[in-house]
Amino acid sequence: MKEWEDKIRKVVPYVPGEQPNKKHMIKLNTNENPYPPAPKVKTVIKEMDDTKFRLYPDPTANALVKAIAEQYQLEENQVFVGVGSDDVLAMAFLTFFNSDKPILFPDITYSFYDVWADMLRIPYQTQPLDENFQICFMDYEKENGGVIFPNPNAPTGILVNLDFIEEILKQNQDVIVIVDEAYIDFGGISALPLLKKYENLLIVQTFSKSRSLAGIRIGYAMGNPALIQAMQDVKYSFNSYTMNLPSIQIGVAAVQDTSYFEKTREKIIATREWTKVKLKELGFSFADSMTNFIFVTHKSYAAKDIFEYLKTRDIYVRYFSSNPRIQNYLRISIGTDQEMDCLIAVLKEYLK
Amino acid sequence: MKEWEDKIRKVVPYVPGEQPNKKHMIKLNTNENPYPPAPKVKTVIKEMDDTKFRLYPDPTANALVKAIAEQYQLEENQVFVGVGSDDVLAMAFLTFFNSDKPILFPDITYSFYDVWADMLRIPYQTQPLDENFQICFMDYEKENGGVIFPNPNAPTGILVNLDFIEEILKQNQDVIVIVDEAYIDFGGISALPLLKKYENLLIVQTFSKSRSLAGIRIGYAMGNPALIQAMQDVKYSFNSYTMNLPSIQIGVAAVQDTSYFEKTREKIIATREWTKVKLKELGFSFADSMTNFIFVTHKSYAAKDIFEYLKTRDIYVRYFSSNPRIQNYLRISIGTDQEMDCLIAVLKEYLK
Repeated sequence: MKEWEDKIRKVVPYVPGEQPNKKHMIKLNTNENPYPPAPKVKTVIKEMDDTKFRLYPDPTANALVKAIAEQYQLEENQVFVGVGSDDVLAMAFLTFFNSDKPILFPDITYSFYDVWADMLRIPYQTQPLDENFQICFMDYEKENGGVIFPNPNAPTGILVNLDFIEEILKQNQDVIVIVDEAYIDFGGISALPLLKKYENLLIVQTFSKSRSLAGIRIGYAMGNPALIQAMQDVKYSFNSYTMNLPSIQIGVAAVQDTSYFEKTREKIIATREWTKVKLKELGFSFADSMTNFIFVTHKSYAAKDIFEYLKTRDIYVRYFSSNPRIQNYLRISIGTDQEMDCLIAVLKEYLK
Repeated sequence: MKEWEDKIRKVVPYVPGEQPNKKHMIKLNTNENPYPPAPKVKTVIKEMDDTKFRLYPDPTANALVKAIAEQYQLEENQVFVGVGSDDVLAMAFLTFFNSDKPILFPDITYSFYDVWADMLRIPYQTQPLDENFQICFMDYEKENGGVIFPNPNAPTGILVNLDFIEEILKQNQDVIVIVDEAYIDFGGISALPLLKKYENLLIVQTFSKSRSLAGIRIGYAMGNPALIQAMQDVKYSFNSYTMNLPSIQIGVAAVQDTSYFEKTREKIIATREWTKVKLKELGFSFADSMTNFIFVTHKSYAAKDIFEYLKTRDIYVRYFSSNPRIQNYLRISIGTDQEMDCLIAVLKEYLK
């Protein structure tokens, strides 16, 4: 090994999920929204002025911050925006998790939490979900350097209620508690009302799922002004200009169209409920998902075999091979009615 | 102070430069390109398909990596792209500067180096430029944890030649040496040919200046595949999907238009040389800039006063109040001929 190689930061390289790109595939593996973004997004692109690209974008992305604040009836100083919720969460880890005590999160959860902790050398301790994949709030009452969990949890899809979250907040008033609400818009209730009561609460959401803008990279955090300011300070010390001009303009158009947002999420919820019925008929079992995916297992067929078979039929779902507790599960994103119909038909053939 | 506030990462908040937005101002304060991006960028926007925004972008941004690699006759595994060169440099600091020994950079240089070092808790030692603002390569022969300097340096505008860079590389074969070439396209010679000989060399460039795309946020690093791989590993552990779909498509269009690139940079160089003559006539002195800005001082007028006066005339240049060595200097970006003409006329009035 050369001397210079010795000092390179060693990380277990995170490998992003498969992004197949076939013409007639059914892509149900990364929880993307099957519907296009709000119609005004198209107008924004058509009217975009390329001569403005030569200038730096607004480092505060104020137009977008303002639009989000208005949408959620917050002050502008309660909103932080970033390049997808991954950027927002990474900045939050960097800003808030500086204790020698371990941060706590579930053993089965969003797969990036331990990656960030490892990379940023933050001590952590995972808390096992119970046998029904439920988070046990008593596990979060021990001494810690911070708490983070998604609600609904991923990839289980299970939602907890606000009393549950408040219980965790009550027990953890000395650290920052992050609730990662990437999937909250598909039937959950946001922890937003708790912001008034708990100034150590940070809520993170994204435009990638319910706003159909995964390709534009917009995530945001909501919290008390002191938390948002601390994140801004770190962000400005990392990269002042993260949000490019198209993302700011497109984001504003998307967040302002409430009726389109309501319409598409209701469609996805309806499709999910239909899919649940059909999957149950086929012998699958699953927790009652409140997200745009369902996390399923089958009593007689191995998840890996189903996964491989679906691939041969150009249907892509997600299989997590690395965690032994969920090796017999598949995460299936909710697509259009037609796509789910097709999935069910193909599964029926395979399982018969 | 509340308990949770105690663990928040404290950083000296970096305040991004003023971004005035008046209709008839002359904006010469952030080294933006006065010309719009390559004409094909307009076409790319007009043809952009908003229905694709619902999908995650390619995490490898392969189309853009490929276009850059082709442009510079490199292999794709020698190119790393990020959200502006700030993102690329921050990732490089995180990846490569993990030694207990201090990293070295000039005392007068890009103002983000010490911000990143502070934020990431990397020890550093600044090396004073000589009285002519030249980098002294002997200062970089002491034991260190890495070396970084811009070429041309900012805000001085002074270029060093490849022999100078090779001398620094020869003396620092055990650490990573980063040459930040944000302004190299305005008359400098890139260190690219040295990549074949020094596998610890990383070169960083940007689309923000010579490609007129500050608003789109694209930067890139070029180096040997082991360095690029190490940066990818860290980047994927931070945020897999940093480059949004518009930035990838717009970046490809911009980098492929070589003739427009040549034409605009030659125009800027010609305007700069004209401006040098005029500024000299007005009693300004400055090092021979090889960038799209000139770093000037005046024998009889205080920089701060000139700066304030120009603002009253809606002309914005950059004044660095914090570093005592350059408190009597102004950094003036090169605009269009018309803008520089106007600047010179206003200065003439003020100085008479």
